[in-house]
Amino acid sequence: MSTDNTIFERRESEARSYCRSFPTRFVRAKGSEMWDADGKRYIDFLAGCSSLNYGHNDDDMQAALIEHIKADGITHGLDMFTETKADFLTTFEEVVLKPRGMDYKVMMTGPTGTNAVEAALKLARKVTGRKNVIAFTNGFHGMTMGALAATGNAGKRAGAGTDLDGVTRMPFEGALEGIDSLSYLEQMLSNGSSGIDAPAAFLIEPIQGEGGLNAASKEFLQGLQRLAKEHGALLILDDIQAGCGRAGSFFSFEDMDVQPDLIPMAKSFSGMGLPFAALLMKPEHDIWGPAEHNGTFRGNTHAFVTARVALEKFWKDDAFQRELAEKSVLLTTGLQAIADEIPGATLKGRGLMQGVDVGSGDLAGAICARCFEAGLIIETSGAEDEVVKVLAPLTTSPALMEEGLGILLDATRALTDNNKIAAE
Amino acid sequence: MSTDNTIFERRESEARSYCRSFPTRFVRAKGSEMWDADGKRYIDFLAGCSSLNYGHNDDDMQAALIEHIKADGITHGLDMFTETKADFLTTFEEVVLKPRGMDYKVMMTGPTGTNAVEAALKLARKVTGRKNVIAFTNGFHGMTMGALAATGNAGKRAGAGTDLDGVTRMPFEGALEGIDSLSYLEQMLSNGSSGIDAPAAFLIEPIQGEGGLNAASKEFLQGLQRLAKEHGALLILDDIQAGCGRAGSFFSFEDMDVQPDLIPMAKSFSGMGLPFAALLMKPEHDIWGPAEHNGTFRGNTHAFVTARVALEKFWKDDAFQRELAEKSVLLTTGLQAIADEIPGATLKGRGLMQGVDVGSGDLAGAICARCFEAGLIIETSGAEDEVVKVLAPLTTSPALMEEGLGILLDATRALTDNNKIAAE
Amino acid sequence: MSTDNTIFERRESEARSYCRSFPTRFVRAKGSEMWDADGKRYIDFLAGCSSLNYGHNDDDMQAALIEHIKADGITHGLDMFTETKADFLTTFEEVVLKPRGMDYKVMMTGPTGTNAVEAALKLARKVTGRKNVIAFTNGFHGMTMGALAATGNAGKRAGAGTDLDGVTRMPFEGALEGIDSLSYLEQMLSNGSSGIDAPAAFLIEPIQGEGGLNAASKEFLQGLQRLAKEHGALLILDDIQAGCGRAGSFFSFEDMDVQPDLIPMAKSFSGMGLPFAALLMKPEHDIWGPAEHNGTFRGNTHAFVTARVALEKFWKDDAFQRELAEKSVLLTTGLQAIADEIPGATLKGRGLMQGVDVGSGDLAGAICARCFEAGLIIETSGAEDEVVKVLAPLTTSPALMEEGLGILLDATRALTDNNKIAAE
Amino acid sequence: MSTDNTIFERRESEARSYCRSFPTRFVRAKGSEMWDADGKRYIDFLAGCSSLNYGHNDDDMQAALIEHIKADGITHGLDMFTETKADFLTTFEEVVLKPRGMDYKVMMTGPTGTNAVEAALKLARKVTGRKNVIAFTNGFHGMTMGALAATGNAGKRAGAGTDLDGVTRMPFEGALEGIDSLSYLEQMLSNGSSGIDAPAAFLIEPIQGEGGLNAASKEFLQGLQRLAKEHGALLILDDIQAGCGRAGSFFSFEDMDVQPDLIPMAKSFSGMGLPFAALLMKPEHDIWGPAEHNGTFRGNTHAFVTARVALEKFWKDDAFQRELAEKSVLLTTGLQAIADEIPGATLKGRGLMQGVDVGSGDLAGAICARCFEAGLIIETSGAEDEVVKVLAPLTTSPALMEEGLGILLDATRALTDNNKIAAE
Repeated sequence: MSTDNTIFERRESEARSYCRSFPTRFVRAKGSEMWDADGKRYIDFLAGCSSLNYGHNDDDMQAALIEHIKADGITHGLDMFTETKADFLTTFEEVVLKPRGMDYKVMMTGPTGTNAVEAALKLARKVTGRKNVIAFTNGFHGMTMGALAATGNAGKRAGAGTDLDGVTRMPFEGALEGIDSLSYLEQMLSNGSSGIDAPAAFLIEPIQGEGGLNAASKEFLQGLQRLAKEHGALLILDDIQAGCGRAGSFFSFEDMDVQPDLIPMAKSFSGMGLPFAALLMKPEHDIWGPAEHNGTFRGNTHAFVTARVALEKFWKDDAFQRELAEKSVLLTTGLQAIADEIPGATLKGRGLMQGVDVGSGDLAGAICARCFEAGLIIETSGAEDEVVKVLAPLTTSPALMEEGLGILLDATRALTDNNKIAAE
Repeated sequence: MSTDNTIFERRESEARSYCRSFPTRFVRAKGSEMWDADGKRYIDFLAGCSSLNYGHNDDDMQAALIEHIKADGITHGLDMFTETKADFLTTFEEVVLKPRGMDYKVMMTGPTGTNAVEAALKLARKVTGRKNVIAFTNGFHGMTMGALAATGNAGKRAGAGTDLDGVTRMPFEGALEGIDSLSYLEQMLSNGSSGIDAPAAFLIEPIQGEGGLNAASKEFLQGLQRLAKEHGALLILDDIQAGCGRAGSFFSFEDMDVQPDLIPMAKSFSGMGLPFAALLMKPEHDIWGPAEHNGTFRGNTHAFVTARVALEKFWKDDAFQRELAEKSVLLTTGLQAIADEIPGATLKGRGLMQGVDVGSGDLAGAICARCFEAGLIIETSGAEDEVVKVLAPLTTSPALMEEGLGILLDATRALTDNNKIAAE
Repeated sequence: MSTDNTIFERRESEARSYCRSFPTRFVRAKGSEMWDADGKRYIDFLAGCSSLNYGHNDDDMQAALIEHIKADGITHGLDMFTETKADFLTTFEEVVLKPRGMDYKVMMTGPTGTNAVEAALKLARKVTGRKNVIAFTNGFHGMTMGALAATGNAGKRAGAGTDLDGVTRMPFEGALEGIDSLSYLEQMLSNGSSGIDAPAAFLIEPIQGEGGLNAASKEFLQGLQRLAKEHGALLILDDIQAGCGRAGSFFSFEDMDVQPDLIPMAKSFSGMGLPFAALLMKPEHDIWGPAEHNGTFRGNTHAFVTARVALEKFWKDDAFQRELAEKSVLLTTGLQAIADEIPGATLKGRGLMQGVDVGSGDLAGAICARCFEAGLIIETSGAEDEVVKVLAPLTTSPALMEEGLGILLDATRALTDNNKIAAE
Repeated sequence: MSTDNTIFERRESEARSYCRSFPTRFVRAKGSEMWDADGKRYIDFLAGCSSLNYGHNDDDMQAALIEHIKADGITHGLDMFTETKADFLTTFEEVVLKPRGMDYKVMMTGPTGTNAVEAALKLARKVTGRKNVIAFTNGFHGMTMGALAATGNAGKRAGAGTDLDGVTRMPFEGALEGIDSLSYLEQMLSNGSSGIDAPAAFLIEPIQGEGGLNAASKEFLQGLQRLAKEHGALLILDDIQAGCGRAGSFFSFEDMDVQPDLIPMAKSFSGMGLPFAALLMKPEHDIWGPAEHNGTFRGNTHAFVTARVALEKFWKDDAFQRELAEKSVLLTTGLQAIADEIPGATLKGRGLMQGVDVGSGDLAGAICARCFEAGLIIETSGAEDEVVKVLAPLTTSPALMEEGLGILLDATRALTDNNKIAAE
């Protein structure tokens, strides 16, 4: 690459990471494609880690945002009432809540997923008067101290430099061989001498984005809901990565017949990738005092504009959702072809949040690196980074999807051929 | 007001707060003025709690942002390299670091102040291998669990619903009558049986924004720096509210001859009120592993655009800083006139971050409420909300500043007259 | 009962407990019998919760202790060197350590089991530099804050009034239906994203005294030992209740081919029921600084006298151990007869630490209450107090053992007959 | 010394400490004297760290204990009712409580001071529903995790190997130069943004035994009592070391007109140095559930015997107390003579709990070492071990007191002469 990246080496923290996997300088992005400073074009199968479900720079969102800016619309309004926020809330109520028969209030938290999770944990503890939160293996909920305590990854946890208390870990569905996770949880909670303190909440991702695309079944989530009720705990479904259509419907748990008490939302919630997060709460749990949890950037006004457009454009009827169902099949087919190249490989996830467990982090990493050279941005997931994960924009055209999957297949073949040769 | 706010009551969390003090619906804002749905105009002496130091919708920032959007510039780029980030970092190096002889690396944290503080705490603990952080009375550092532990306010702390450990509280300069805070801290740290565990860091705001506009002196900050060195702790100066010109210079501590180890920045760092936060670190402390602290919205690309414009427009030479010095005098004069109306009232803060301690939260609240009716947005600060705080945009014209101060003076007079009558 | 117990009601705390189950005033005790103020005689199947394994007031211990007192032997010697301590340590080395090929150092902790456990936890954390301790369901390790964190009982835990952190709970062998506890533990420790922090220690009772007489198998303890080694954790076998012959050999794990890193001892360690506790440590772990853990009553000198006599009298050869094997069979036979009276009842424990799980705490409590009336002191155990537990002195004669078991059988029959009648 | 101490080196933990300062093997002790294996006699100015206030092996206690043992009196009775406990409680009520107009209930905790402190902390937290405990600089309350959190010494704290949370540290009276400790505490508690969470209790020693013989004044303790009431906290006076006559009256705070809510007692409470501890509670605070805090050795029956004798022998009238007043003067005079030898030395403590702050731990250690050679057992205290502390039995005859003080004076002179020579 011709670009000079010394400014980053000189001035940007060693914490930087994606730029290490994709070492070029990006300048432009549209839909499911990005271009770097050399004019090279990439298909984006990462989509801002599911923050760009509607693709880069959607025309309608761009237009609405530019119009808002030109009109001197509020940019930063703390949590004052604005026309823009009213429009967003009204649209959210009409397009999302009412058709699904959901009655939730919206808390504008700081514009990060971790902030929405922290708010959820605070609220669950306030509502129940308890401290202990049940979180699950391979869960990822954020990097601030409260959310980090609920995150499983050892490296991330070590970064705390201090204690991460108040969380009890339970196995995600299917996490352990020969262990029925729900039965385990139920028996531990039922034993008065188990040493598991009465829980304030169960905190779980319906599909674990960072943890390896593990998807909970309807039975598992309903079982959790039943146990939560029996034990006086709140059910928190963290839909930050799996929500906003990623799993095939607006919420990832729509077909599951569960009614979570709290739902942290972020990533694609703004539609266009702008920082935005919110906590959805059953009204009876909204016992916050004014500013009891607050933050300077809560309720990003630019994001209200694009979030509203996203709801109006994609979720007013079921056309988009039907489109997702079709693409999901296409994706499964493509990934199966890739899995077939690798002995023991299995498909993970569901909807537009699928991947292939290739059995080793080294192989998965090598595949992604080769894809990047060939013009495809794609990343790994899982405790050992062993899952090649496709998070393409939901709006990716079938043709582009096929093209990306083709690159992925070629890269896989090249590497597994190499492996075969090496093994001989 | 004619506007219907039932959508907020129906769908927005009870945590909402500023909208309770300013119960109207805003539609437009420019410079130091805002307009509501009824067309009523307000002077803004709150400025997004110091997030709008350059005023609402600065023309140049607007133009640059619109141009970026129109060109399909990256909106969300995770922490990949982008042209836009390179431009921001280069400008920051040229305009801020070099002229001040400062050598710092920039960590793009999640786009909230609390996230930058959490990163600072993690890093201080990692660098020192210690847990205990010394924070100060009336300190405000954020609402996520790690930062909240360092925040003093009892109500905010109670919101945690669980323990806030790992922080030892010390008195801010002048917080206690008859107690020399620095001597107290020094003696406690020097006694091997004091029960104060060896500190990882001192975390302090040079001027306490939420805590009552308490401004630390050069002697105090230098004393802290000396003690930090002697005891192997890092000095973290939280410049989130007082930085970006608010105190009269880019950093609030520029004249203090202190070299903080870590500097969390947020609020006005993006220039235009867009969510953005960063942690500045002395290079020797940048021992992060890749993604050891991360977040989906770290390094908001739209904010890189406006932040760069802010630096170029206001900080390339010392014209703006000289302007601030003049306005600061104007502000002091105006506030003194107000303080003169109230027996026992005192001035607080410095630079464009000044206020009047009116002795009671009730009076301060009443003054602010009356101001709002008269078209001035202004808020209180302090443990008992006893300080009327002026956080006008730094770009506020002298005429507008005078107008706002006039409204404040009238409101004060009206209420103190009422009080006199009531007292008779 | 004729005795007046108002002094206890007036002046002793409501925390008192056994006196509620056995509401009489005891005046004298010898061997396996106790007498109350009315001269009524009781067989003691509780034995100070296994603190009186050699019976009440053993003649030889009495004589040695009286001789020591008469000679103005040291009563309280802090942790100075005394002739008495030297004699005890020498005897312990000769009688216990050498024949078993064990190389351990002895730490004289405060004279309570919980203090020995606290010392063990401190040391494991110091040795490994880690915090997390793996404890097990139904475990009981003491009531001070460090040990309480490792104790499972919900009521005891609630008594803390604050947080009990630093412990991860795992299922004891066989605790959960359909769950292989060792496999569960192994898989959780092997997953880098399980959220289980690297352990400093595994803390477990080979037989859970308070938790329901659950006895770990050789395979389970060896599995733990293997996992501890693999994961860099220390293996702490808490032999406070099961040690000193209770399980049939001096240590409860002698036939298990495990070499615990740390062994907290208490209860019958003094031989005569005097307060005494110690922590046995593999020499390589004895990295304590002088007085790093200390306590005024560490190393009770009177207890050194009786503890030495106990070792000399009972453990110099294998006669006592063979006797225990025979009594153990007698006990099993007797308890089986009782279990046969109750549908679904099962035998628990091993050695002289056996009981009957009668399926309900109410029934177990009623049986014990009826036994007390008939002159037998016996208590329950288990999370729901569902196990009738026999902890008779190991020195109980076969005749007395039969007599006690007879009372227990009668009580059981009477109550189960009643139940049958009630059920009809 | 002729004795062979290799058994201790081989088998006793490196945690051993006093034996390092007094490296001989003791065999016999009576009153204020001890004899080692070589027949060398020592005057004991340490008295088991104030556990032997009535001297070693008091004749009457010996006789009563031997009689109890011979009669097969209960040795270990858990917390069942015994004749022996009834006698002790009745005597305690008659001799201690009634004459002082005190109404307290007695909780038999595990027989260590730290256990009584743990019980006090649990109870204070239960009564108030709060977690935060205010403890003081240089405080020493025990080595188990709950009590250790309240202990100030850095070395002891480091031994925890994990976090010691739930305690806020405040300066003891006079601990800091130029700082009014009570004013500091009051102002910190009154500021709603101080970050000091509402306290469950103040935990303080009226005279700090390990912390340097710092004695709180009546004004200070009354001030604490007032603040505790105002802020809804319990006042816990830890009289473990200063109680039982050590300060000149049975409780150290008798002349102070304070009514502590909770009083942990241990050390000399058994009279003869047997392990024994208790928590005294105002009846309204006795909200324990049965066995909510328990322990195998709670209520050591041998100790009930000797504790009762101690009360009857020494506290039935005020003769002993008057004797203590006289001895206290004698001690002050003797220590002043010693202090006069050392420039800058000051007297510390009060009653029979006095010492000399010689300004350096090295000097204090050297003095004690020289005293040991000359036949006097005496130890240091204070954060830097800078105080030579006299804790002679209260029953020490004036002649023996003079003899011991003479040795101390000689040792001091020898060393300060040496110092003078070295300094020239």
